[in-house]
Amino acid sequence: MDYNNADFLTEKILSGDKRALSRAITLVENEDPRAVKIERDLYGNTGKAYRVGITGPPGAGKSTLVNVLAREFKSRGNRIGIIAIDPTSPFTGGALLGDRIRMGAALADPDIFMRSMASRGGTGGLARTTTQVADVMDAFGFDVLIIETVGVGQLELDIAGSVDTTVVVLVPEAGGGIQAMKAGLIEIADIFAINKADRDGAEILKSELQDALSLMPAIKNSSWDLPVKLTVALEGKGVKELVDTVYAHKDHLEQTGKFHINRQSQAEIKIKDIVRAEVAKRLWMNPELSTMMDSLSRFCVEGKIDPYTAARSFLRSAEVQKV
Amino acid sequence: MDYNNADFLTEKILSGDKRALSRAITLVENEDPRAVKIERDLYGNTGKAYRVGITGPPGAGKSTLVNVLAREFKSRGNRIGIIAIDPTSPFTGGALLGDRIRMGAALADPDIFMRSMASRGGTGGLARTTTQVADVMDAFGFDVLIIETVGVGQLELDIAGSVDTTVVVLVPEAGGGIQAMKAGLIEIADIFAINKADRDGAEILKSELQDALSLMPAIKNSSWDLPVKLTVALEGKGVKELVDTVYAHKDHLEQTGKFHINRQSQAEIKIKDIVRAEVAKRLWMNPELSTMMDSLSRFCVEGKIDPYTAARSFLRSAEVQKV
Repeated sequence: MDYNNADFLTEKILSGDKRALSRAITLVENEDPRAVKIERDLYGNTGKAYRVGITGPPGAGKSTLVNVLAREFKSRGNRIGIIAIDPTSPFTGGALLGDRIRMGAALADPDIFMRSMASRGGTGGLARTTTQVADVMDAFGFDVLIIETVGVGQLELDIAGSVDTTVVVLVPEAGGGIQAMKAGLIEIADIFAINKADRDGAEILKSELQDALSLMPAIKNSSWDLPVKLTVALEGKGVKELVDTVYAHKDHLEQTGKFHINRQSQAEIKIKDIVRAEVAKRLWMNPELSTMMDSLSRFCVEGKIDPYTAARSFLRSAEVQKV
Repeated sequence: MDYNNADFLTEKILSGDKRALSRAITLVENEDPRAVKIERDLYGNTGKAYRVGITGPPGAGKSTLVNVLAREFKSRGNRIGIIAIDPTSPFTGGALLGDRIRMGAALADPDIFMRSMASRGGTGGLARTTTQVADVMDAFGFDVLIIETVGVGQLELDIAGSVDTTVVVLVPEAGGGIQAMKAGLIEIADIFAINKADRDGAEILKSELQDALSLMPAIKNSSWDLPVKLTVALEGKGVKELVDTVYAHKDHLEQTGKFHINRQSQAEIKIKDIVRAEVAKRLWMNPELSTMMDSLSRFCVEGKIDPYTAARSFLRSAEVQKV
């Protein structure tokens, strides 16, 4: 009965206790050492949830779309976990969180679990934490995980590499297909959704996107024709079709063997992240090496050596010490 | 006479050849191996330029401000290098570059050299590249380097750690002091500039910022009282005072010994970046380890092991192979 104990939390998560799930996610977010134990013990139970990433510019109606998507997935017999990464705008404070309030209906649903995570400032470790949170939610037993982010920065690229299907949400005003190409949207999208499609320009954007896509047929070396769907999330329009398209992409991945390949590359990213963290600990937390780094950086400022020579000396010491 | 040869470029840069400078910067941006040689050979000549970071939200008039700041620095007998990191908006394409056109006047000035860099998508290596470009420009002989970025993301945090003085530019509409605190602006700012201060709300924002600052006097454990300056860059108003304030901050850093401490921590960041890159090469480019990683990630997907156990096995192999 101790929600501070890792074994207890693991057991409770596997028996469907949402309080234990919430608590474990907090431990992951705080990089608490207990989180590692929980993740390890739960790992054998992960891999069953289908992971969908949703990204797009601010104001594209992503929260509303996620809300109606979750309900549509539910109506098909799924339990849904949502991870929403809320950017606190660095220049205006956390105003964007206001959007969440409108999601009340879905949030009261026992089959839909949502967790918000703040992306204040640095995004360095956020993709890794998000994947870890997704793993814990996966082990809990959700069938579909929806991960919502804003923008196409490093975080979104990393998230796109850790989900099965990425939906890029645009609005009719969002420039044309050439812009999407330039912006690298096509590289990360598996499906485009033009939301607020009752506004002027939706059909034009759709055909511009399709034109741009036809210019680059070999994208991702794929036999998947990147679909462009129209939605009006507020009215629930186009949502069934969008979910059908997600399932079509899932089928495509499974039939071509890409599903397994992607999952393996996701696992590789996780292993590499852990290796990197361990190596960083050995290199930067070692007292003797820290002393050496102090001297080397001083020599650099004094113009006695350059940073490349300094780095080489540092690495040689690390090797001698068998770091 | 070979602008493809590293030694030639180094020599020409030291003799003030701007074509060689531009070429070397391109090599740095492209991560060309020749860039490392150039950087190493130039390193002894770096450290003389004073580095000023300028950041703020889109539309704050940063480009115009940088333009007039550069001219003011010039009028005090300095040669100025500008690095402008232009975000190509991921959702609309590269529209923001349009601002640059207005800078024509300063750009035609032989004592002012500007280089734009695009921050398309990932910002992973961009801070590092920016520092390398700044080092080459420093060795060329500029007295002042201005590095302009947009926002307060990971890149801006990294840049703030690699310059001597960071100016955060706001506009009167930019929310109040509490927002600035929340957004982490106060942590990175050495000076606030409220630009477009002829608009309503400039004085209010100024006193709100000052109130917020008075609530956190121990910020950065510093004896520097974070100043809030008003500017109207388009009319050149407040620009002299802003440059005076930059010099006041420089004096403060020098008198307190922080200048040297900051420069040393900047050198440390450079050394660590090079160490990290070298370790990454050894870990991820080794064919035997790659084969092992393949198997380990497969085992993870198959649920046979967890990523932590996999990472431990991988590191053990790396040690055995003396990677």
